[in-house]
This record gives sequence, C-alpha cells and structure tokens, in this order.
Amino acid sequence: MDSGKKILIVVMDGLGDRAVKELDYKTPLQYANTPNLDWFAKNGSTGIMDTIGPGIRPGSDTSHLAILGYDPFKVYTGRGPFEAAGVGLVGQSGDVAFRCNFATVDSSMNVTDRRAGRIKEPDTTELVKALKDLKIGDVDCIVKEATEHRAVLLLRGEGLSPYVSDADPHDLAKVGISRATQEGAEKTARAVNEFVKKSYEILNNHPVNIKRKMEGKLPANILLPRGAGMFPDIEPFEKKYGMTGSCVAGVSLIRGIGRICGLEIIEPTLCTGGLSTNMEAKAKAALTELEKKDFVLMNVKASDISSHDGAAMKKVEVVERLDKMAGYIKENLPPGAIVVFTADHCTPVERMDHSGDPVPLCIYSENSLKDEATEFNEVSCTRGCLGRVLGKNLMSILIDKADRSEKFGA
Amino acid sequence: MDSGKKILIVVMDGLGDRAVKELDYKTPLQYANTPNLDWFAKNGSTGIMDTIGPGIRPGSDTSHLAILGYDPFKVYTGRGPFEAAGVGLVGQSGDVAFRCNFATVDSSMNVTDRRAGRIKEPDTTELVKALKDLKIGDVDCIVKEATEHRAVLLLRGEGLSPYVSDADPHDLAKVGISRATQEGAEKTARAVNEFVKKSYEILNNHPVNIKRKMEGKLPANILLPRGAGMFPDIEPFEKKYGMTGSCVAGVSLIRGIGRICGLEIIEPTLCTGGLSTNMEAKAKAALTELEKKDFVLMNVKASDISSHDGAAMKKVEVVERLDKMAGYIKENLPPGAIVVFTADHCTPVERMDHSGDPVPLCIYSENSLKDEATEFNEVSCTRGCLGRVLGKNLMSILIDKADRSEKFGA
Repeated sequence: MDSGKKILIVVMDGLGDRAVKELDYKTPLQYANTPNLDWFAKNGSTGIMDTIGPGIRPGSDTSHLAILGYDPFKVYTGRGPFEAAGVGLVGQSGDVAFRCNFATVDSSMNVTDRRAGRIKEPDTTELVKALKDLKIGDVDCIVKEATEHRAVLLLRGEGLSPYVSDADPHDLAKVGISRATQEGAEKTARAVNEFVKKSYEILNNHPVNIKRKMEGKLPANILLPRGAGMFPDIEPFEKKYGMTGSCVAGVSLIRGIGRICGLEIIEPTLCTGGLSTNMEAKAKAALTELEKKDFVLMNVKASDISSHDGAAMKKVEVVERLDKMAGYIKENLPPGAIVVFTADHCTPVERMDHSGDPVPLCIYSENSLKDEATEFNEVSCTRGCLGRVLGKNLMSILIDKADRSEKFGA
Repeated sequence: MDSGKKILIVVMDGLGDRAVKELDYKTPLQYANTPNLDWFAKNGSTGIMDTIGPGIRPGSDTSHLAILGYDPFKVYTGRGPFEAAGVGLVGQSGDVAFRCNFATVDSSMNVTDRRAGRIKEPDTTELVKALKDLKIGDVDCIVKEATEHRAVLLLRGEGLSPYVSDADPHDLAKVGISRATQEGAEKTARAVNEFVKKSYEILNNHPVNIKRKMEGKLPANILLPRGAGMFPDIEPFEKKYGMTGSCVAGVSLIRGIGRICGLEIIEPTLCTGGLSTNMEAKAKAALTELEKKDFVLMNVKASDISSHDGAAMKKVEVVERLDKMAGYIKENLPPGAIVVFTADHCTPVERMDHSGDPVPLCIYSENSLKDEATEFNEVSCTRGCLGRVLGKNLMSILIDKADRSEKFGA
C-alpha cells in the first residue's frame, strides 16, 4: 500500500433546499443548469448525508465539525471559540470565549447602537489596546478585534463554564446581566458582568471615543459579549488522521473551525466569503494547496447567503457559478485524488434559514462506483450507491477510499 | 407461530470491490456472468451492508463476529483465540492466546528461518508433546500444533492481558522481547518471554531436531508467539438466538470464530479454503447441515484469495464459480428457508487488501419483498429495499424474517 490518495472536500454552504414554488416546485439545484456537477454525479458515487443527524438543524460550525469527524455534541458548547480562532485567537482547553460587539450605551446603560455607528479598524484596534492585560479576580481577559464592529473575548482561569447567558441584549435595550444557565457557571457570569462594566469604564472616555464624538460619530464605549463557548480539547487533525491538511474559506467562523482542528488556514485574495467571491480563484487555491497537503477542506459561502436572503433565482445563479467552479476542479484535479461535493446543511430559500434536511453528497475518484444518479441534486443523489450516511462517518469513508485506513482485525 | 424458518448465510469472502480499470471500470461482480446470483437479487430483498461500520476496514474475524451478532469492539482483542479455536483449542474467558510459528534460531537468538524449513506434522506433533504441562510461575502454557509450521499457545492464569507485543520479529532478526502495550500487561509479557526461552531450551536438543539436522533439515528449535488476544466471554449462539447452528468453512480462522460462538464446525472434504475448493461440495454440505440445524453460516474464501493476489480476471472466474454454487443452492434450498448472500468485507483487487466499502447483501425467502435490484452487485443492490444496514443488525433482521423474534411491547 502506498501512502494513500489525496482528498478534497468542497462544502457548498447551505446548498440543499426544498421544492420552491417560484421554481416550479424544483429545488435551486434541480432548476439550475449544472453540467459539471452532474458529470461528477454520473461518474462518482452519490448519496445523501445528515451532517449531524436526521432532522437535526445544524449551524455551519457544528456541521463542519461533524464533516471533519469531530463530534459536535462533545466539542461544541457555543460559537465563541470558533469565532475567536477565526480571527487568530486560539485559546487553550478550558478557556471560555465570546463574540462581542463594540456598542454605544448611554449613562443608564441603555444600548443606543449595537454596532457603535459601524465602527471599524483602526479605531477598534486602538480601543482593544486599552483593554490589554485586564484581569477580573483570577480571570484573565483577552480581547481581540474582528471585522468591523466585532471583537472576541477570551476568559482564562480556573473553573470557568460556557453555560452563561449573553450580556448583549440583542436589541436597543438595557445591557443584559449575564447569568449562569447551569450550576457551576456563576463565577463565569460574574466575570462577564464585571468585564462589561470595566469595558465601559475604560472605553467611555478613551481618546478614540472623544475624537469620534467630536466628529459626530457614535462612541464605541462598551463591549457586549455573546455566544459563550468553551475551547474544546481537540485531537489535532494530523494526529487523528495521519494526514496534513488545509482549510480554504472566506468566512471567519469556518476558518476558526479549521484552525482549532489543526488545519492550515489559507485566505486566498478575491475570496471574500460573500456573494461576490471569486469561486474559480478559490478552487485554484484549494487545488494548489492539495499539491502540498494530503487533505483540503474548501468552503464556499455564497449559496448560503442567497438562501438567507430568500432569493430563489439568485440562488440558482449562485448554483450555476458553483457549477463552473466544479468544472474548473474537473479539469484540474490531480490524478488519483478524491473529490467530494456536498453541503454543510440545507438552507431552504423559503425558510431563509438552515434546515435539518439531508444534503446531497458525491464522492468522486477514478475507481469510485458509478451509480444510477445522473444529476447532482437532492433527489437524484438518493438513487446513489452511498445511501444515506451520517456526517460523522464521512471522514472514515474517505480515509478508507483513500487507502489510508487501519484494518480492525485480521 | 411455528418454530420458525431455517437460515443459511453464505459469506463470499472479500467479494465486494471497486471500479477496476482492467474491467472497463466495472467491479468483478458487475463484469462476471452471474445468472443465479442475479436471480436471487431479482427475487429477494437487497441492500448494502457495513459489516462493522461505514468506512471501517474489517478483518475477516471481526466482520464474521459482527455478522453473527457479536460486537467485535467488545469481544475481539486479537486473532490468537480464534486461531486457537480454529485448530480445536478452545480456552476459557480470561485465557490469552497466540498464534505461533515453529522457527529456527541460532545460538545468539537470531531467527534464521521463520518457518523452520516448513516443518509439518508429525514432527510438530512430537515437538508439542515435549512442551506439555509447561508452567511459568502460576501461568499454565498450553501448546497445540496447527497447519504446517504453525502452532497456537494459550496462557492461563490470574491477571493476564492481551495487550502485549509479539515475540515474533516478523523478519530474519533477533527474537523480539514481548512488551506490555497497556498498563497491567507486564506479567503476560514476562510469561511470553519466559515461554519463548523455555521453548528453545526444550526444543533445541530434542530428538526430532537432532534427527532433522542429521537429515539436513532446519531444526524447529523455538516457538515465536504473535497476535495476542483474550478469549472472550461469549454468549453461546444457541442460547443467544434459540437456534441450533453450524459453521461450514475451509479456513481455520473462520472455524475458530464459529467454534467460539458455539456453532458446530463442519469440515467437508474437498473444501480447502483455497482457490481450488469445491464450492458445490461445500454448498451441499451446508444444505445437508441445514436439514439438521436451524442456522448455517457458510464461508467461501476463494474470492478473497484472488483479490489479495490482485488478479481481476481470476476474481471474475471465482465469481462465476460462486454463481454456479448459488445455482446449486437455488435448486436445493429447502422450502421456506431463508438464504443470505453477502460478503464479510470488500477486497478491491487493485488495493490487494480489505477495504471498508459496504458489501452487497441479498436476503431471499419465498415471501421476501422483491425490489428494483436486478443484479447482485455493489451498485444494483443499492436500489434494494433493505437500504444500507449494519452487520450487527443482520441477525436481528434474519431472526425476525424467520418468524423467531420476540415482540417488544404489546
């Protein structure tokens, strides 16, 4: 046995859908013209996949964890750590992390703008500096700016818990009091509340905010944490699978997942994680990466965005762009490699949010079984030879198809 | 409810495969002419089966345990006990068993021939006699000769563990030192090393070896254990399922599995466990056995052997012989019986070793649902009405189809 085949997983975010009235009760995938994805369906092995479980409505974070073979029920307690890692702040097992907004409050602690007038760098960078080395009791507070008005907060200390409610009121209302939602989280809730108070004390009269007010801008005079989660104790990808790996993603959250799992993060230019992203450039970056590594996970977010917008025809357009990207991959896939086309979850355009429907799945390599699926969509793939699989089994299946699996028994 | 139907499982070892370039990207099953297996697919219920789990690459031992409804993760720690039971040495729960080679070492304990000049009976039988009643501390050592240069060793005593490395260096090298691979296995490792030393002391100047040297043959002056495993505490088949059962197999390892599970072992003549085996004679033996018993498991090894040889056209030939065997079963199956055609694992000819791909499955009885599968192969069976099932569920499914299941509830 040689060292095994290379593996590329292409996650088309939120791709799967339901029968859409506007599309003659077809799904966007069924409605769109997708000759390249269909070629993979015809020449590869297809099926459908419950990324987490039948009827379980995944986030992009939990589903990507499952696709990478990490049990989200064990490693995921909230979005915070993955957002933090997405902007390069990787904590250690036991740290509790939060997403934060820079916001504007009045002197009665009422939120008057949840985004502090859409503040961004370099102002946020300056403000974060003022919060450096902040300590609440024995708890270290580590803050890092993220995109625009966002930041991340990491609490480090003994006996912390992710089971605390948000200080962010998620509305123009009084700043929330973080509370323990499970026993043993009281210390963490107190630290959050104290942090919010201190952030106001430090930021309210900070020179950056004085200057902003003089310029008629809203001051970013408080940080509002939400989405608590504990940094998990995760077996690094390379140790777990014996493969080197990279993650090519425009979205910070997905980069955070990849980074925490130990994948190298590739941020190709032109790939924005938005609707305007250059998909071919992303595919090129992924294939270049595959020359160096054993495994690449690539995420394209545009399909999810058009779904959240509820824009059926826009999603059809995105699907056709994804198909062209698949065509680029078809022409440039290194010989012998395995490529997987799938989604992390469905995002039905009529629901404008994620659903727990299974996603289409195609695993292609030169020696993959060809089955009766002739198109890559939610229905045709159910005729495939993979049947209905679970996201948590995908990596085992791929590792075996790549001739990298250990034998259990003799 | 009468006493229930009879069940015959035909395991065609390593039968499943991948798309093979030499066969126009068909699998050997797709390429071969198999009218009888196809008849069963057309008239029976089909599906695919992960004998252990999706992507998990089984051994023949662990997969047969799963097919018989015993969880290999609980009962399997190594091959030793099943090889020992295969040659009739059935230990008790807690015994640790090993496969051994009679080998030749020089006075510096360097292995000069791992098979002692391919020694066989009656020499090995004589040498084993000299090791009778061997005791190391409070550990009893029981040795039995197996085929050709092989033997099995059973250690019996308090506090033994299967987690020890091999003394067999698997090469022309110095005899290995067995070591504990988990805490608590130190006593067992010491016993193994002491046993190896004693075997040399006893065998080196044994009259059989003196005679062999005079005849210019290599002496079998040491026993080298490998493949430690603990005899599991297994609920006997008849107690577990309320059925009497037999196992018809040419391969010692499979006979060992059957024997440990409490099946009667049938060794029909002409069935060698090799490529030359007489498949029709084996089928006849299985059907004769089915007259007397409720359940028969039959294993045909030839398909696995041709796969390990990487011989695609040879595997096609074997498949066509298996099909003739299926024809014999079709003509001679007792009325009302259930017959299952499946494999224990795939052995892709291009990989020349087992893979974790699912295997085709067909369950036939007079009243089985007929589905859309028209051929018995890895792809057609995925159109079947059984879907993708787990090996550990097969016995429950069969027991129920045989009208032998207990009702859960009212």
